[in-house]
Amino acid sequence: MRSKLKSAFAVFCFLVLLFFTGCAAVPEQEEQPCESTPVVQEIGKPAHTKELGNNTPKYVFLFIGDGMSFAQVNAAQIYKGSIFGGELTMGKLNFAQFPVTGMAATYDATSFCPDSAAAGTALSCGIKTKSGVLGLAADKETMQKNIAEMFQEDGRKIGIVSTVAINHATPAAFYAHVPSRGDYYGIAMQMALSDVDYFGGGSLIDPEGDDGNEEDAFEALKQNGYSIADTRDEIMTLGGNTGKVYAVCPTLNSSDAMPFSLDAAQDDLTLADFVSKGIDVLDNKDGFFMVCESGMIDWACHANDAATAISETLVLEDAVAEALEFADKHPVETLIIVTADHETGGMALGYTATGYDTHFSILEGQKLSYSAFNKIFSDMKKSNSQLMMSDVLPAVKENFGLIAPDDPDAALEQNAGRVLTAYEYEKLVSALSESLGNGQTDKHESMLLYGGYEPFTVTLTHILNNKAGIGWTTYAHTGGLVPVFAYGAGSESFSGLYDNTDIFKKLVSICGLQ
Amino acid sequence: MRSKLKSAFAVFCFLVLLFFTGCAAVPEQEEQPCESTPVVQEIGKPAHTKELGNNTPKYVFLFIGDGMSFAQVNAAQIYKGSIFGGELTMGKLNFAQFPVTGMAATYDATSFCPDSAAAGTALSCGIKTKSGVLGLAADKETMQKNIAEMFQEDGRKIGIVSTVAINHATPAAFYAHVPSRGDYYGIAMQMALSDVDYFGGGSLIDPEGDDGNEEDAFEALKQNGYSIADTRDEIMTLGGNTGKVYAVCPTLNSSDAMPFSLDAAQDDLTLADFVSKGIDVLDNKDGFFMVCESGMIDWACHANDAATAISETLVLEDAVAEALEFADKHPVETLIIVTADHETGGMALGYTATGYDTHFSILEGQKLSYSAFNKIFSDMKKSNSQLMMSDVLPAVKENFGLIAPDDPDAALEQNAGRVLTAYEYEKLVSALSESLGNGQTDKHESMLLYGGYEPFTVTLTHILNNKAGIGWTTYAHTGGLVPVFAYGAGSESFSGLYDNTDIFKKLVSICGLQ
Repeated sequence: MRSKLKSAFAVFCFLVLLFFTGCAAVPEQEEQPCESTPVVQEIGKPAHTKELGNNTPKYVFLFIGDGMSFAQVNAAQIYKGSIFGGELTMGKLNFAQFPVTGMAATYDATSFCPDSAAAGTALSCGIKTKSGVLGLAADKETMQKNIAEMFQEDGRKIGIVSTVAINHATPAAFYAHVPSRGDYYGIAMQMALSDVDYFGGGSLIDPEGDDGNEEDAFEALKQNGYSIADTRDEIMTLGGNTGKVYAVCPTLNSSDAMPFSLDAAQDDLTLADFVSKGIDVLDNKDGFFMVCESGMIDWACHANDAATAISETLVLEDAVAEALEFADKHPVETLIIVTADHETGGMALGYTATGYDTHFSILEGQKLSYSAFNKIFSDMKKSNSQLMMSDVLPAVKENFGLIAPDDPDAALEQNAGRVLTAYEYEKLVSALSESLGNGQTDKHESMLLYGGYEPFTVTLTHILNNKAGIGWTTYAHTGGLVPVFAYGAGSESFSGLYDNTDIFKKLVSICGLQ
Repeated sequence: MRSKLKSAFAVFCFLVLLFFTGCAAVPEQEEQPCESTPVVQEIGKPAHTKELGNNTPKYVFLFIGDGMSFAQVNAAQIYKGSIFGGELTMGKLNFAQFPVTGMAATYDATSFCPDSAAAGTALSCGIKTKSGVLGLAADKETMQKNIAEMFQEDGRKIGIVSTVAINHATPAAFYAHVPSRGDYYGIAMQMALSDVDYFGGGSLIDPEGDDGNEEDAFEALKQNGYSIADTRDEIMTLGGNTGKVYAVCPTLNSSDAMPFSLDAAQDDLTLADFVSKGIDVLDNKDGFFMVCESGMIDWACHANDAATAISETLVLEDAVAEALEFADKHPVETLIIVTADHETGGMALGYTATGYDTHFSILEGQKLSYSAFNKIFSDMKKSNSQLMMSDVLPAVKENFGLIAPDDPDAALEQNAGRVLTAYEYEKLVSALSESLGNGQTDKHESMLLYGGYEPFTVTLTHILNNKAGIGWTTYAHTGGLVPVFAYGAGSESFSGLYDNTDIFKKLVSICGLQ
């Protein structure tokens, strides 16, 4: 009781403080007063920078770039600019043009470098919990109501979308309550009982349990009123009358996730497609809440693969574009938040060997994800256990644009910057040896060099990234801050540096969920 | 009168709020909805998060942390928390609690990794120019009026303060117009003609020209009406009637800068002292503009020395505290911006070998800056050109807290985490050999490992930082975004992700300088 009184008095004081000090919203940017011609061009889609209004939002989008912090965002911006050729140009992501920006601290209950379960729970439930825990307090027992459940109680429809499996940590944080993120089957069964209106994107990990002997989670979903749409045609016909539905991408990678954008066929469905169809399913007069994750930015950053991280960040941008199109039709009533759960990889846009230069156009040489190249390399190893550099260099050239010093193309001017130096070539030789099980590197150094990844592939992405001017410090998550971009109704609350749990608290407050 | 009443009431509410919630940090946070005891504590000074008002600011502070981006800020926050022992705690810098935050892109006319001259000119003049250029357009000829000159024309007093030499790039961007930042003498002579009311902090590089044969720039300053205050007593008596003055720190390091905070004596003047005295000199009814740089965050990050970078960030925080104290007396009329010119070092708060853990308290073992240790090490080399590990290990233990595996103290429990691994010991052996000119490392690898710095010292900071969970990717600047923190009148304009030149443009607009 005393605590309630304290709390009520605190809220009263805070409101009085706000009233008397005049906490203001963010106006539009000013006109540029400078007359000099800038030598730098900026490239981007039309900006969504206007402030829509301060009303309680009816339609709320929460986009999460897993592992996407400031470096990942700006890498995508520089890449979008750099690819336009010789002149120094700067691309702009649509969400990077939102009028309100914040920064969030991401530490969890036990580490400054949180895992996606604890960080997802911070966003979904507004609490610090332990690594691996979803929707429960740090005691691994106390249930925490999540924001999707609160929106649901408020009468809104709910959508949960991700490029990765829907029972993976980040999407699961918005419907599941389990002590271990690794309990994929238990999570999937909670999904079936969630009453969430729309699931879309990746498939399920272990839908029949980790031993394959349990009741199929897809059947459980059906028994609980879900239709499963897993062909392009079925998905494309989804709409407001569909009822509860799980739209599963017809093309999947080996992790039950959607294909990496770099590896996808032209007609594969995209995250944007699943957001677009989700809007069709969810749109109703009482409003909706949709959480949408681009989950493989994180995987790419774990593998220290910048080109894939950038392309998965652009996947997020395309998905956000769908929300912006919706917001254009529903101004004053729509709030869009774009943020991240944590940073991955310690990505930095500068590397010792490139000094003050960057050469992001070199990243264009990479034609597939680290994961897809792993498959190619694995197949090569299977057919020839004594692989030599001469056996693998053609695949290196084709898939990463990196050219051996003795390749005839190495002399061509347009290939400058893509030719392997003697130092890099030696690194690849060592990595190949390590990949074939003949390495001389001790265990500790091997972990520093390769992080448990396929040594040859991770050495290739390191070399390509370093040539572009990108460095990495780890294969894990880091304790960096993450950006928050906000647009629309209520967005003005998201300026400042705050805790990731405050994103939940701000949403609860703005949307009147208390 | 009404504004004073409002202010007093706001302060009263704030204090009551603090008292009743028992929370030393941000007041706008809601009570945690969960009943579980949070395992995370937050540590910091009283928050300045209230919005002061939307009036045109009369008093404007622009703080620049040279090289200080998100990682540097959060490193300082984690360090402030971590040092309180075993529990996971998070410190809060005063400026990180400002109510408005933005992000700025820092690329210059020719590089995504700008130098401090071009980046300083972007902030001071609102234009993109070439590397090394101060106050001129990219053609290196066209004069660009800077914000200090515009404030001056508007009738305000001007102060320029830095920990580094006042004719170094960043402070010089606010008064000089030269094609090359290396023209220290030319810059100093422009300083003499600038009519800036207050210079404070570091001394001058090459005050008699690079050959020592020119007219003394200090004499030129005197001839142009400046008094030079270069003793503690002289500086401490400065005030509103002083006239134009250059307050030079009585204690300087070898770069004509103030001592690194880690190396300073207890009674050495600090950046905060120079801001405080600057306020005394500048305070007048028509207002003032003060730019204040903590310049050696950058130097520490170039040298990949996290403990020094953190302590120089805390130097900035202390300087900002002086501005906040002023703002408390002049609410509604004061604007404080804290930002950076660029990121340095590609600092990341995660390192491969530490995985998801950080151990920032290990940084406490470092007792001096990389620069001061260089001096100690250099003296040891001079007295013994055949230094062995056994000769240097006592200094390593004393100054960095790192303990050799065969040291008797290595077995003590409290030293866990500070003992050099075999891998680290070997790195030190190689670095010592390199420092003594006996290295086996080829030139390219040497540059990657040591970046042109004293190999033994930079290897020590690398090892200490990596043990703490901090990594670096370069010895140069990077192309990362930088944070912008804004407090007070007009601060609401600083939300969003924009260009560094927009900081100038926003100030011009808010302050009516067009």
